[in-house]
Amino acid sequence: MKLHQLQEQLKLKNIEAFLVTRNNMFLNQDVKDKENQLMALSGFTGSQGYMLVTPDKAWLFVDSRYSIQARLETDSDKIEVIDIKSFSGAITSILKENNINNLTVNPWCISVNDWDKYTKNGINLIEEENLVQNIFLGPKEIFEHNVKYSGLSSQEKAKQIAENLSDKYAAMLITSAEEVSWIANLRAVDLENTPVLRAFALLSKQGELTLFADNTNYEGILELKNLPVHLANYKNQTVLVERNFTPQKILNFFDKSTKIDTKGFNPISNFKLKKNQTEMAGFKNAHIRDGVAMVKFLHWFENRPKGLSEYDIVKKLKEFRQKQELFFSDSFSTIAASGKNAAIVHYSPKENKSALVEENTVFLLDSGAQYFDGTTDVTRTIAVGNVTDEIKNSFTQVLKAHISLSSLTFPINTEAKSLDTVCRSILWRYHKNYGHGTGHSVGHFSDVHESPFGLSPNNSKFAEENFITSIEPGYYKENEYGIRIENMVYITQDENKNFLKFKNLTLVPIDKRLINVHLLSSEELKWLNNYHKEVINCLVPYLDEEVRNWLKSFCSPL
Amino acid sequence: MKLHQLQEQLKLKNIEAFLVTRNNMFLNQDVKDKENQLMALSGFTGSQGYMLVTPDKAWLFVDSRYSIQARLETDSDKIEVIDIKSFSGAITSILKENNINNLTVNPWCISVNDWDKYTKNGINLIEEENLVQNIFLGPKEIFEHNVKYSGLSSQEKAKQIAENLSDKYAAMLITSAEEVSWIANLRAVDLENTPVLRAFALLSKQGELTLFADNTNYEGILELKNLPVHLANYKNQTVLVERNFTPQKILNFFDKSTKIDTKGFNPISNFKLKKNQTEMAGFKNAHIRDGVAMVKFLHWFENRPKGLSEYDIVKKLKEFRQKQELFFSDSFSTIAASGKNAAIVHYSPKENKSALVEENTVFLLDSGAQYFDGTTDVTRTIAVGNVTDEIKNSFTQVLKAHISLSSLTFPINTEAKSLDTVCRSILWRYHKNYGHGTGHSVGHFSDVHESPFGLSPNNSKFAEENFITSIEPGYYKENEYGIRIENMVYITQDENKNFLKFKNLTLVPIDKRLINVHLLSSEELKWLNNYHKEVINCLVPYLDEEVRNWLKSFCSPL
Repeated sequence: MKLHQLQEQLKLKNIEAFLVTRNNMFLNQDVKDKENQLMALSGFTGSQGYMLVTPDKAWLFVDSRYSIQARLETDSDKIEVIDIKSFSGAITSILKENNINNLTVNPWCISVNDWDKYTKNGINLIEEENLVQNIFLGPKEIFEHNVKYSGLSSQEKAKQIAENLSDKYAAMLITSAEEVSWIANLRAVDLENTPVLRAFALLSKQGELTLFADNTNYEGILELKNLPVHLANYKNQTVLVERNFTPQKILNFFDKSTKIDTKGFNPISNFKLKKNQTEMAGFKNAHIRDGVAMVKFLHWFENRPKGLSEYDIVKKLKEFRQKQELFFSDSFSTIAASGKNAAIVHYSPKENKSALVEENTVFLLDSGAQYFDGTTDVTRTIAVGNVTDEIKNSFTQVLKAHISLSSLTFPINTEAKSLDTVCRSILWRYHKNYGHGTGHSVGHFSDVHESPFGLSPNNSKFAEENFITSIEPGYYKENEYGIRIENMVYITQDENKNFLKFKNLTLVPIDKRLINVHLLSSEELKWLNNYHKEVINCLVPYLDEEVRNWLKSFCSPL
Repeated sequence: MKLHQLQEQLKLKNIEAFLVTRNNMFLNQDVKDKENQLMALSGFTGSQGYMLVTPDKAWLFVDSRYSIQARLETDSDKIEVIDIKSFSGAITSILKENNINNLTVNPWCISVNDWDKYTKNGINLIEEENLVQNIFLGPKEIFEHNVKYSGLSSQEKAKQIAENLSDKYAAMLITSAEEVSWIANLRAVDLENTPVLRAFALLSKQGELTLFADNTNYEGILELKNLPVHLANYKNQTVLVERNFTPQKILNFFDKSTKIDTKGFNPISNFKLKKNQTEMAGFKNAHIRDGVAMVKFLHWFENRPKGLSEYDIVKKLKEFRQKQELFFSDSFSTIAASGKNAAIVHYSPKENKSALVEENTVFLLDSGAQYFDGTTDVTRTIAVGNVTDEIKNSFTQVLKAHISLSSLTFPINTEAKSLDTVCRSILWRYHKNYGHGTGHSVGHFSDVHESPFGLSPNNSKFAEENFITSIEPGYYKENEYGIRIENMVYITQDENKNFLKFKNLTLVPIDKRLINVHLLSSEELKWLNNYHKEVINCLVPYLDEEVRNWLKSFCSPL
């Protein structure tokens, strides 16, 4: 369907406004392009957004990461792009400005939480499943995530979670595909870069786990049409339902006598964020192999043939990664951006739309992989030819911000947003900032963006031991250049038991050619040289002599 | 009344538990000692706290600023001191642990907000006015705060606020004594260090202002007993009532048909925080005079007679301040603490209870004054004799934290708590922290602690141009020493219009003898030397030759 066709339908059916979401019923999870109705109707390819459509107007709401990209990808005659902080707030404002009180949505594609927000804002929501459909192009292949990688069997996980579920609940409905995949130790060949099994699960207080998913004949998984029957079993009992991942539609499947608690404590999220010893060991090993692939790539890049495009780089990098043991897939669409493209925070070159690697500027490469034993995500900004002093100063300032957080010790019970501030405030001193969070947690052989812990200005979760997060400050100058330096780190106890600190996972050189050494303090210089020493020590056993020598020189002390 | 007498009354009247608050009906405002029922019953002299009393037990709840002091001041056989973060949360927990469902309170001494919190927590509140009374020992003398200091007449203020009051309100009830004093341009001789007029006011949407206060025959102020009649006027209309400052009792005075909105936007608070040009000029001048007094004091202190007590120091410092033009009073009880006393964050020596100034340690002096044109608050930590390297390192680390925030530029729309983090995180790196906020706003010839903006971990107000705040990181080692460095600063636009910065108000030397210069970066050193240059330049015209020469040497560049 095209946008104008949807608008004709709205006219025909006398619908005031329709909300197009990016997701099918698996909310806050990636979608395939063919499931992505927002992309089909607007052209916008970003990872988050909503479109409000009336018979004669359309607004696309995106956050600051996508403000440039959304305008490039959409037709400004038909769609007005609006940059927002709070989606439901901004959408409500537009509705009120246009005197629209009734908003039609597909109840499979909106969370209980969002539904409540609109209702609280005085918007009357109308359910309509057939106008813009909930498309689910199920998994191709389901497989078990071996306990030698996950550390705990599905039975053990289900038992622990059930024990930690409050006694007031007879069961919990698990609607986040990442949480279902984690507790079931199942994965699937389905989404391009995220091996999760998109399914729902029901966990009883007794620890019995039942999975529901379509398009599968994996033993023990029931078809989704069985979910209503199972939910209706909980007459006169209380069931915990996560509000951010559960489609509003599902609330209809409960018996009227069931008490649905959408605000209770979900014990999975902290268990999943806190990596166990097996997962942590896997992450460390995966980062060594990923470092080897990245170093081989960087060595190749320095001696690359002329005239390559960003997309050629993406393909070449994947070749190096694919040769590593336990490689499964990339962990997200590689961002390989030359010069001014790097200022588009989530730019990703396509086979048919990719610039050449430009000389005398920076090349930003943000990539990662899914290995069976761990997931990686690393960004490096690389000098190509001679770069200006301005770029070098910006790079060095971003590096200082990176080091300031990476080297921090902080008290237990520190909120994620405080850690975001520590990093970001270094750039404030240079009148700089970045329109994205400072870091995100990473799932274990799962979604590279793991919720609900993340280093961003509004995240008030406490940082805990054995959480993993990226540290990725950046600076983006529109139409000129972009810089980001991203490592994965884990949180561990400091020598002082009231404090925590970060330890490094990522092992990839930082391009010294971009550093203005006069801007670094002696501590910062020491951090950099120690980091490069660690990179050399960990990777050298896996490199041939030529690459080894190149690495030692590329990482020599400043 | 003694605690045991109250407990006998509880037994007699079959009262399960009573909540003793520190305030009379002027909530969140200082009280006179004779009004302070918490002090009378517990002995605790701190500025915040609650006591829960049952027939046979009592718990005193204080925050971390007072955890040492509260234990020193109370009888541990009779009162258990509990350190808390959230008062109502901790008190509710104790109630629930002891199976107490009914909590009796004096409805004059509890805010609408607190009342709601307990009710939400499932506690049944019972009103009882006569057990622990609401004592108000009214103002002695009311006087006008001249418009040459305030910048705006009361009529102008009332007009501006009424215009900014939402159209849905017929009136607003102003219950914060600071806000009443501000809008009425009135002050009183009443509280020892805070010249506010403790009164309530009613502002109609038409801009008509009516004041209510007892024990006064100031023209135009009505007796408090008239308030119910005036409130009952707003039949079938909506009135804005601030929830943190309004006693629960007052809600009874409205007509049943009046809609009382306790969650709406109070336009006074931002007007009051944002100092106008006259107020700002006054603050600058007041800080010059206060700097002169402090420098004269410091010069005297360096040559003081032997055997002085902390209390002698307090008296002497006040002598220097009293000689300054436009001096009205101290702005709070001076904290003059030698050695280990300085580790008690809010220690304040009394005439009959004061230690001698100890040799070979630090002396912490936190003091300020009310001048008609502005209010000051400054803390200096001074070397007495030879101090250990440990103390010097701690002092230098606190100084680094101070400079890190003082020299920061930050984007518009930065939250107060982010600024708190920037400062505090410098000390985290040394495994240090402080159990109080990083700073507070200051009223203009009013309360030295002005709400609702303050640099603390939970304050999410945006920092705005022309706000004034203290910057006061510290470090306290129990039973050994305490360090704090506090300046007042104001917020102003940076050269880059998307950013804000701080400018200094306080002009008092920082004791270089306590600095380990090897811990300072060249930027930090530059900040210190520039600061001292500014102190010398601003104060030298007001000092005689001896003090001038002493200041120049005390502030010579490092």
